[in-house]
Amino acid sequence: ADEGTRAAAARRQDSLTKPPGSLGRLEEIALFMAAWQGNDRPRIAKAQALVFAGNHGICAQGVNPFPQEVTAQMVANFEAGGAAINQLCRVNGADLSVIALDLDRPTADFTAGPAMTEAETLDALNRGAAAVDPQANILTLGEMGIGNSTISAALCAALFGGEVADWVGRGTGSDDDGVRRKIDAIARGLARHPGLAPIETLVALGGREQAAICGAVLAARAARIPVILDGFICTAAVAPLFAADRRLLDHCLVGHVSVEPGHRKLLSAMGRTAILDFDMRLGEGSGAVLALGIARSALACHNGMATFADAGISGA
Amino acid sequence: ADEGTRAAAARRQDSLTKPPGSLGRLEEIALFMAAWQGNDRPRIAKAQALVFAGNHGICAQGVNPFPQEVTAQMVANFEAGGAAINQLCRVNGADLSVIALDLDRPTADFTAGPAMTEAETLDALNRGAAAVDPQANILTLGEMGIGNSTISAALCAALFGGEVADWVGRGTGSDDDGVRRKIDAIARGLARHPGLAPIETLVALGGREQAAICGAVLAARAARIPVILDGFICTAAVAPLFAADRRLLDHCLVGHVSVEPGHRKLLSAMGRTAILDFDMRLGEGSGAVLALGIARSALACHNGMATFADAGISGA
Repeated sequence: ADEGTRAAAARRQDSLTKPPGSLGRLEEIALFMAAWQGNDRPRIAKAQALVFAGNHGICAQGVNPFPQEVTAQMVANFEAGGAAINQLCRVNGADLSVIALDLDRPTADFTAGPAMTEAETLDALNRGAAAVDPQANILTLGEMGIGNSTISAALCAALFGGEVADWVGRGTGSDDDGVRRKIDAIARGLARHPGLAPIETLVALGGREQAAICGAVLAARAARIPVILDGFICTAAVAPLFAADRRLLDHCLVGHVSVEPGHRKLLSAMGRTAILDFDMRLGEGSGAVLALGIARSALACHNGMATFADAGISGA
Repeated sequence: ADEGTRAAAARRQDSLTKPPGSLGRLEEIALFMAAWQGNDRPRIAKAQALVFAGNHGICAQGVNPFPQEVTAQMVANFEAGGAAINQLCRVNGADLSVIALDLDRPTADFTAGPAMTEAETLDALNRGAAAVDPQANILTLGEMGIGNSTISAALCAALFGGEVADWVGRGTGSDDDGVRRKIDAIARGLARHPGLAPIETLVALGGREQAAICGAVLAARAARIPVILDGFICTAAVAPLFAADRRLLDHCLVGHVSVEPGHRKLLSAMGRTAILDFDMRLGEGSGAVLALGIARSALACHNGMATFADAGISGA
């Protein structure tokens, strides 16, 4: 991030017609955008929303009540404009692209072996990176994939430790037996793949949409594009990057905190506070795109307000 | 509220292509809007943002570091388009009207007598009610008035009790001495006006913009227009209505929770949770208009999403 630009943006904030600091988190978002865009008047002329979809061999362990066909059906729904993410992108001004990653070829069941090969992981990383529009001023990330709350809990347990059960929630709607199956499958996966380095964890326990999200985050960093992550699954997807070097996520905000219980625990482990807390648990990038609307408001204030000098307002 | 319409809207939410309940607070907002508009497909074709401004005799007690002229200067800034509220209304699609209430004639100092006469209070109530556009689909409320965080703390202490100091914060930027002067002035005001009924409290301790906000809330109720309140000062303005009959605020949401410490305490006393928590403390209706953007997203999902039947998605 460009700290000189951040300081210039902070000076502008303090000159605007409001008590200093009174726009709170909106001011922080404006300074963050300034620093990463390298522009003390940061802008959102083009916002890109990317949604990556993948399927998961771990579904063989009965971790999700829905069939894997739902992933492709939801991708078709995204393409037809009928999903929540379509409506949210329209209202908040994001250009949506949906990238289905080999849905007819799920990853392998991680209780039996690595979920992906290194080549598959690298391919998904590259497809994620290639999807980023270098002209975008901000990028929101999201995902769809039946079974991927199990993948996310497995990544978190492997990278941050703790009780497996503390990372597991109901996902799209597991009952108590389903939650027990998730915990059991993850425990067997962790036993099968001990002592992995961060990126090896992504290979052994992750999935294609997780790898693609990592690739998009890295490509955005290279292009100085600020990123808004979505909820539990999207944040867990980049946890291997955080574990490798936490500075890799410095250009990312977290759009919302999910009701999926692992998310609050993960944000705490990463030292992050989400922008919104709306009891959501949908995925698709929905919380990230809602937070994009907040970022638009933050920049409108930063760029559009009069200064005290302009407006002739008396000081204290 | 129309509970039949709320139930119809809830049935629609459960038919949409998402796990039931997964849009969390967005679903609650959609049902709230449906019930108050009496329309199971609630809409925001016209959003009105009202900002009321007043001046306060309590400033004679040194409760605010800024001169009262700042109120009129900020009204001029609103009219010129240079304030935060102007930018937020543009991004979130609200029509802004600013109503300055006799700024050259501040209320009386409540440590010496009642802040307003009954006639002045009624006049401000009526001007607030008259400002509501009966064609609006949603109304956001806000205020501007040097000294009005003292007014707000006084109203809360009179209506809900507790230690005066617990209702008092730094407002636009009081130092420790300024905070002590606020607490002392309020304590003397409470001693001067003991045992008042809720609406008498508004007369004795309130101000014109507080009365106008009450009038606007009541007029919106009569026209079935849902309302979004702003932060501490706006919520404290309607506390006399809450104390008179808490159902009078059933058609109101609270847009954000302010860092002004009295607000969290007031929301707790009223049993409310704000939509946003952004460490803001600006007023002007800024938090309410930000929350309007969230309501737009909530209704876009409610009205625009495909149902499971439309999209041909498999069940669990």
